[in-house]
Amino acid sequence: MEHVATVRVIYGDTDAAGIVYYGNYLRWFEIGRAELMRQKGFSYRDVMERDGVLLPVIEAGATYHASARYDDVLRIHAEIREVKGVRLTFGYRIEREDGAVLVTGHTVHAFTGRDGRPVRPPAAFRALSKST
Amino acid sequence: MEHVATVRVIYGDTDAAGIVYYGNYLRWFEIGRAELMRQKGFSYRDVMERDGVLLPVIEAGATYHASARYDDVLRIHAEIREVKGVRLTFGYRIEREDGAVLVTGHTVHAFTGRDGRPVRPPAAFRALSKST
Amino acid sequence: MEHVATVRVIYGDTDAAGIVYYGNYLRWFEIGRAELMRQKGFSYRDVMERDGVLLPVIEAGATYHASARYDDVLRIHAEIREVKGVRLTFGYRIEREDGAVLVTGHTVHAFTGRDGRPVRPPAAFRALSKST
Amino acid sequence: MEHVATVRVIYGDTDAAGIVYYGNYLRWFEIGRAELMRQKGFSYRDVMERDGVLLPVIEAGATYHASARYDDVLRIHAEIREVKGVRLTFGYRIEREDGAVLVTGHTVHAFTGRDGRPVRPPAAFRALSKST
Repeated sequence: MEHVATVRVIYGDTDAAGIVYYGNYLRWFEIGRAELMRQKGFSYRDVMERDGVLLPVIEAGATYHASARYDDVLRIHAEIREVKGVRLTFGYRIEREDGAVLVTGHTVHAFTGRDGRPVRPPAAFRALSKST
Repeated sequence: MEHVATVRVIYGDTDAAGIVYYGNYLRWFEIGRAELMRQKGFSYRDVMERDGVLLPVIEAGATYHASARYDDVLRIHAEIREVKGVRLTFGYRIEREDGAVLVTGHTVHAFTGRDGRPVRPPAAFRALSKST
Repeated sequence: MEHVATVRVIYGDTDAAGIVYYGNYLRWFEIGRAELMRQKGFSYRDVMERDGVLLPVIEAGATYHASARYDDVLRIHAEIREVKGVRLTFGYRIEREDGAVLVTGHTVHAFTGRDGRPVRPPAAFRALSKST
Repeated sequence: MEHVATVRVIYGDTDAAGIVYYGNYLRWFEIGRAELMRQKGFSYRDVMERDGVLLPVIEAGATYHASARYDDVLRIHAEIREVKGVRLTFGYRIEREDGAVLVTGHTVHAFTGRDGRPVRPPAAFRALSKST
């Protein structure tokens, strides 16, 4: 799984248990998929604006192996797991700087038009599917 | 200042210092102004959709007197301080259930159209200005 | 599944796609489990402070059926699905005021002491397990 | 004012008005002051752990000059404005990549011990005050 971004934990990410709030990892998943796509040569903004295609999340899951704490440096890893029909699945792994795996997860997205109806993936995504 | 809403602090509101994160009070300010407007008989959604008027924040300020902690019940108070030209100012006070004042603040908003240009306040707001 | 809380969507919950950001539902899951426990006669804060027991999330999942939008009123439903060994599973369903099911999900928690080590669930939880 | 960090706007930062939610800039202010301190040779975590000194926010203010949008690259600038008695003031400026100034602001912090009582600033901060 490719390393696509690095973030440092701020107070705003943590909660009163002294660790990163469980819901905030979904923000880092978003950074992961956006940067992964950018590294593959197309940005999510371009896909939306040029092709009129949206990618709403229809499923998300996370497994929490260990906690991140204030000031920890985290490495976001992301991959495209599957492009099948009108669905796209990303996988994620969040590691601490020392290599400890903190959280793994996935999101499933639907290709839709601006009206919310399913549409065929843009050609760039179909090609992506073959190459990964 | 009118009491317009009550919230209970969740882990997602707090940070690793064991208290509510300073930025999260701006969410409660938003709840305050939305509920205040609703109590005065018109919702922000209506203003936007019917009148095509937006109210972007152009200034915000908060003073933190005491900390809120996990599971505290908070009372949100809000008032309209001023409607002047194309600007609208709200005031806020967040209290704990026992009456302790935790945070006071204000936001200044501009009346704009969907294109971001200043517009004259809808009649309902101009009337409001006189009645408060 | 019991209806345990009602929230109204604010701008702070939404994103530029005009809908509630997918990660923010995990905040409402937290409200759901906290209120469910309170309705059953004990608060999470009490469990932590009196029994020294924490309930970190070790797994979370959500399925997004339809989108919530600004100013929508949402009903949070929650249930205890299982108390088994040192694990506790909650289920959630977020509905719009008109009954439309928007998001369903679950979280799995571990009973741990303050040192992070697994501990036996407090008696109140073991009883709960039988009654639900 | 020093450029201390760069961030890219994600969906999780924006709201249904298509722009960054006004409260989220306070997260970037936090990144700003943490990175500024790190560049000056000491981290906030060290100050807390080594000196037992906390820096709770007692005042925050922001002026919103222009909106940030999805995928914009933002430059966070921060400076220490004043160390006076038991108070520390930071200033911030958030710019878009093209140099447009989006938000300016400040936060005032108190030096306190773990018990919340005011304490004398650690020597490193007093020196800082003279050098800036």
